Amino acid sequence: MTSKKATVLVAGSWGTALAAVLADNNYDVTLWTRNEQQANEINHEHRNSKFLTDAVLPDLIRATTDMAEAVTGAELVLFAAPSSAMRAVARQAAPYIDEATLCIHATKGFESESLKRMTTVLAEELACDPNRLVVLSGPSHAEEVVRRQPTTVVVASASQEAAERAQDAFITPHFRVYTNTDVVGVEVAGAIKNIIALGAGLSDGLGFGDNAKAALLTRGLAEISRLGMAMGANPLTFSGLAGVGDLVVTCTSRHSRNWRAGSMLAEGLALDVVLDRMGMVVEGVRTTKAAHALSAQFGVVMPITEQLYKVLFENQSPRTAVEDLMGRGRTHEMEELSEDWGLHH
Amino acid sequence: MTSKKATVLVAGSWGTALAAVLADNNYDVTLWTRNEQQANEINHEHRNSKFLTDAVLPDLIRATTDMAEAVTGAELVLFAAPSSAMRAVARQAAPYIDEATLCIHATKGFESESLKRMTTVLAEELACDPNRLVVLSGPSHAEEVVRRQPTTVVVASASQEAAERAQDAFITPHFRVYTNTDVVGVEVAGAIKNIIALGAGLSDGLGFGDNAKAALLTRGLAEISRLGMAMGANPLTFSGLAGVGDLVVTCTSRHSRNWRAGSMLAEGLALDVVLDRMGMVVEGVRTTKAAHALSAQFGVVMPITEQLYKVLFENQSPRTAVEDLMGRGRTHEMEELSEDWGLHH
Repeated sequence: MTSKKATVLVAGSWGTALAAVLADNNYDVTLWTRNEQQANEINHEHRNSKFLTDAVLPDLIRATTDMAEAVTGAELVLFAAPSSAMRAVARQAAPYIDEATLCIHATKGFESESLKRMTTVLAEELACDPNRLVVLSGPSHAEEVVRRQPTTVVVASASQEAAERAQDAFITPHFRVYTNTDVVGVEVAGAIKNIIALGAGLSDGLGFGDNAKAALLTRGLAEISRLGMAMGANPLTFSGLAGVGDLVVTCTSRHSRNWRAGSMLAEGLALDVVLDRMGMVVEGVRTTKAAHALSAQFGVVMPITEQLYKVLFENQSPRTAVEDLMGRGRTHEMEELSEDWGLHH
Repeated sequence: MTSKKATVLVAGSWGTALAAVLADNNYDVTLWTRNEQQANEINHEHRNSKFLTDAVLPDLIRATTDMAEAVTGAELVLFAAPSSAMRAVARQAAPYIDEATLCIHATKGFESESLKRMTTVLAEELACDPNRLVVLSGPSHAEEVVRRQPTTVVVASASQEAAERAQDAFITPHFRVYTNTDVVGVEVAGAIKNIIALGAGLSDGLGFGDNAKAALLTRGLAEISRLGMAMGANPLTFSGLAGVGDLVVTCTSRHSRNWRAGSMLAEGLALDVVLDRMGMVVEGVRTTKAAHALSAQFGVVMPITEQLYKVLFENQSPRTAVEDLMGRGRTHEMEELSEDWGLHH
């Protein structure tokens, strides 16, 4: 078999897990990281212990700190940098990416200040056509993917052909990949669900029960859909894997960083203490700030985002925030839903 | 204050929890049960220990085994019998119910053989107009409701006025009640989610992870919506509390009987052993049989119901069932979703 080369930027938990999926599909995978020590651990011990404690990585994964070496000649490049680093990483990779390279990202968030989606950032930095860009998303904790537990994701692109190329690259018996054409919906759903997960962590941390969390999730799905549709998404996306699927897994799983951060905030810890203890990026915090601004920009009501913003950045007490969310709302559900989903009955 | 009388039939966990909500709203609540010993425990110790182990019930709840005494003069009657007992209970109550009585039910299932929804069974037995009937549903574990943890539900009726009367009767600061007009959607969602919860229990019991369960839930929501829409429901209902809200809580909470039954089946226990150990009605088992028949009757594809039917009644191995569900499906998500939800883009 001809060897195929794939590159993953950067070596966080999700990038590493997706590198392992590509290796399962016989790609020679180069994992790029700025951290020499991490690269050595991956190359010599086949581990990335900071991010995936127990996993043994496939031999086909090699790490490097040299961007030129990492990207040159790759058939596909997967961007899995934190949203705050995406532009810098893309800019550094750009010189080594050519017309034929398939560019995929798996990052859930917006760029701060510019409020741009990740495919927009990539299109700008790679100076490429949106038809060459793909977003990969869905209910997929890295810890389970690397253990080859059954997982389903979607790949969305303006180009069906690009989506299908990404599907072929990633699909394995354990990792099912579905194509979708709604890039905006998939990106918005992936970003905003981290805010809802912070809220779910708050609710659980305060001792509210599963009934309350289910109410929050239902409201959260409507909130995601409202913003998504205002930004041009297809409402169907929110009923799919990248919508309700990812929302559920992020709000109810013990693996979720955003949920954990929320539950620590509920214990009364300050935001900087929480972030320090997590030791990894908690995208929901930055996303709350971005979504708060998007909500104003698009004139969309986002009560959960609003309350989280107050807790994170304005010293609102978590208890007041959750109680406020439980108490609010109109009393006729259909009225609210039909407005949320832009449908009429 | 004039005393208002409400009646709850029967004294299972959900009926008892809802009786406590009515008592919080100053109703004199009569809880009817066939079981003399249970009635004595409720009256003398304010407990219903078989169903709600630790709860102390409000003084305003009185139990009786006398149907005439229970129902006569009640302003509202809440039916919370298992689906298999609904017709018999309604028939026994019918002579004491008059034109002015508001009849509400909170039962999630279909009648076996006839495949009728619970409001249809009630309309037949009470010889009353569907405008007098209300269904109450949503993400609401009884154990949390009786502890006054925040909970949200919907009340749906063909008559907005009846729904609003039910809303007024049940709403408290801890128990938020939303009206809805889609009786079919609310009843179908409440019934079918128990099948998905059995499937989620199977998946968890077999050691599949949260990613797999999220995929199952996403597919489950589409399956609920397909059947519901074929039966005349409004698709919006499935994005609301009675749809995605109840589905999430039933599939992810440790309180869920159906989830627990599924996880025991995954351990290889036979169905009768599981039901015996549960000691309470597991509606999902009967609902699987009914939904299997409804799927044929309405020509709706229901892969999760199909696999559960095989596990429960045809000795299919749980592992084969879950693997079959993970492996199936088309590869273009939008195609599947737009068909499921009856929408076009």
